[in-house]
Amino acid sequence: MNMEERAQSVQHAAIQLSALSTEQKNNALKTIAEYLKDNMEDIIAANEKDVAISKENNLSAPLLKRLYFDEKKINKVIAGIESLINLPEPVGNTLSATELDEGLELYKVSCPIGVIGVIFESRPDALVQISTLCLKSGNGVLLKGGSEASHTNKTLSEIINKATKDAGIPNSWMQLLETRSDVNEMLKMDAHIDLVIPRGSNDFVRYIMENSNIPVLGHSDGICHVYIDASADQSMAERIIADSKTQYVAVCNAAETLLVHEDVADTILPKLKEKFDIHDVQLFGCDKTQKIISVNPVSEHKWQNEYLDYKLSVRVVSDLNEAIEHINTYGSGHTDSIVTKKKENAAQFMNLVDSANVFWNCSTRFSDGYRYGLGAEVGISTNKIHARGPVGLEGLLIYKWKIIGSGQTVSEYADGTKKFTHKSMDKKFPL
Amino acid sequence: MNMEERAQSVQHAAIQLSALSTEQKNNALKTIAEYLKDNMEDIIAANEKDVAISKENNLSAPLLKRLYFDEKKINKVIAGIESLINLPEPVGNTLSATELDEGLELYKVSCPIGVIGVIFESRPDALVQISTLCLKSGNGVLLKGGSEASHTNKTLSEIINKATKDAGIPNSWMQLLETRSDVNEMLKMDAHIDLVIPRGSNDFVRYIMENSNIPVLGHSDGICHVYIDASADQSMAERIIADSKTQYVAVCNAAETLLVHEDVADTILPKLKEKFDIHDVQLFGCDKTQKIISVNPVSEHKWQNEYLDYKLSVRVVSDLNEAIEHINTYGSGHTDSIVTKKKENAAQFMNLVDSANVFWNCSTRFSDGYRYGLGAEVGISTNKIHARGPVGLEGLLIYKWKIIGSGQTVSEYADGTKKFTHKSMDKKFPL
Repeated sequence: MNMEERAQSVQHAAIQLSALSTEQKNNALKTIAEYLKDNMEDIIAANEKDVAISKENNLSAPLLKRLYFDEKKINKVIAGIESLINLPEPVGNTLSATELDEGLELYKVSCPIGVIGVIFESRPDALVQISTLCLKSGNGVLLKGGSEASHTNKTLSEIINKATKDAGIPNSWMQLLETRSDVNEMLKMDAHIDLVIPRGSNDFVRYIMENSNIPVLGHSDGICHVYIDASADQSMAERIIADSKTQYVAVCNAAETLLVHEDVADTILPKLKEKFDIHDVQLFGCDKTQKIISVNPVSEHKWQNEYLDYKLSVRVVSDLNEAIEHINTYGSGHTDSIVTKKKENAAQFMNLVDSANVFWNCSTRFSDGYRYGLGAEVGISTNKIHARGPVGLEGLLIYKWKIIGSGQTVSEYADGTKKFTHKSMDKKFPL
Repeated sequence: MNMEERAQSVQHAAIQLSALSTEQKNNALKTIAEYLKDNMEDIIAANEKDVAISKENNLSAPLLKRLYFDEKKINKVIAGIESLINLPEPVGNTLSATELDEGLELYKVSCPIGVIGVIFESRPDALVQISTLCLKSGNGVLLKGGSEASHTNKTLSEIINKATKDAGIPNSWMQLLETRSDVNEMLKMDAHIDLVIPRGSNDFVRYIMENSNIPVLGHSDGICHVYIDASADQSMAERIIADSKTQYVAVCNAAETLLVHEDVADTILPKLKEKFDIHDVQLFGCDKTQKIISVNPVSEHKWQNEYLDYKLSVRVVSDLNEAIEHINTYGSGHTDSIVTKKKENAAQFMNLVDSANVFWNCSTRFSDGYRYGLGAEVGISTNKIHARGPVGLEGLLIYKWKIIGSGQTVSEYADGTKKFTHKSMDKKFPL
């Protein structure tokens, strides 16, 4: 099958998938969990092959760490499937119901989007997570993993395909792509693929966004800010910026820039400098910052730097508005936090900062599907439509409008014979 | 200002717009309505100029009809603004609230998308409708109308800009583009424009969809189907297909293809033929249809024809599945209706037909924002993400995640000192 035929076959299966019962889907998820457990040795053997090749190819230590897929990680993924089974059914929920007229009822009902294209880098756990999320939400999926993990991914997708086949799920609902050229072909398949979710480095995500007509759910940069207001509780501010920067530096919701109100810069910056020195955090400061503490100078483009490292840009601002302006100019619309005692300043910040997540008096690191209690995380989105911020299963859903009539025609309403009632109903779609 | 500067200035104003109060927005809408009333003569004079030029240029009669903007049409647009004022505030609604832990509360709050780019053809009423919808929902807007209506559009946008300026709305929240090259520039501005809404012909919408990285809300084709099942009430079926085809042929929700179950084709097709002959509806039939009634033959590609005229494709299918398969293959995901007495057939049709609107026993012509009772219609979307089918104000909205904390850091939760409670709260965002 060529790429288009493969995409079509997933699209075809997805239609059937959209009408599966909760029992069928959960039973299939259970079977996947069982088969993963039963075939753990095969998975580990395949992963060892990938790791050996990657070591030969001098893959960097962090990437090797992501590639490893041992018993512990497999068990974690299996636990994830079990909690997915316990999530409420996302499909077929009545989102609104309106009586248009007697015997003419309109329902807005949740349904799967259709076909999701997922492209991820080395982590093999992503393959299991995203395919089971798609299954639970009734979506077909085309997957392309990193080539370093090709043996692991092949083994995993074979296991998942066998499990879902045995559980009676339509064949070819999930397809693994193997070559990089498949990805470029896939990005052109807007007739068959409804949404692309890229997981990986910024450059990778940006490449996907710029090279497809298919809507993309995700984020490239995570340039997150902490703003310390003049009225901030200073010890709270110190704790929040320390956590936002250093709790885990390699993630998108870690802070990259600190903004400090000029009224408190003199007192707070020296204390922060001490604290950051302990963690070996390198600071890059604006002119005003340089006059208060010893830091590297920052150049204009640095404000858009996502360090993902023990590095932090620091700017002294003259007021709240300058802080908001800075964030809206240089930020990436991901996560930004204000530390202040003033409710009205917090309100203004949260209203005017145009980001997916805006926080008052807590660490930027909270923006995460697990911490938000979403149950499952599809990804984090800086999109301005569909789904924003940490995205749970609802990001894989859309809705259909369904009308149940009894022979009505529009001409009766156009000529005034009948009138719309437009009464909201507290009623589920009955079919 | 060049195009990028104009887009930036709208983006800048949009941030302020997102924080306006209901009173400020409704007051501005009221002012727009007043100024339109007060300047009716100027508007009509500008429109007469456009009409005169268009007549000289031999604009077609249907387009001329759309271009006319007389007192009656202006009053209708003003009435639309008045009903928009009465709609509930769409911004700042708490969509969910979760206690993450004591003193750490997460809120999902509705907000404007940001900057909307709207491109429409000749109808000047579209300019007023869409700009007031954007204002109500707190979005900035870049507008480009048809060149035939340039005098009318210029006059309207000057009136609206003056009204909103006098009502204290941030300057340059709305900008009118004047040249076709502006549109092509606009389609590249994905850094400043968040959503494009094209209104116009299929080719026009398809061009926009294929030539922009900005998400597009809309639909190109409306290839709608009526399927008459074996168990249909035949007189009901006749009424529904007649209304779906002929109540108004020039619209996207009119039926273009009739599918008939083979068990009832012999009895129903001759009756329909009689009925359609009265309306001079030309029929194009499959082989089986041709054996029952005298029709033009249909070629494969005709199944994807949007006639927008007194023409209808007809196919006899062997069962419900073939009907569903036909619709999913040749349809445009817009609106499809089944006529049947069997509840289970209706359920299967509405589950498996992958369209924005799926109806049981009523005309396809009901898929419309006004008929759905949405209050206002932004457009009709065949997108699979964000908003589908007739789209009301909610299509111009997204949400932000807001956390109110009291100094929490993630490290306390990572090391087990604190635990998330993840309790759903019945509470509005308090700021």
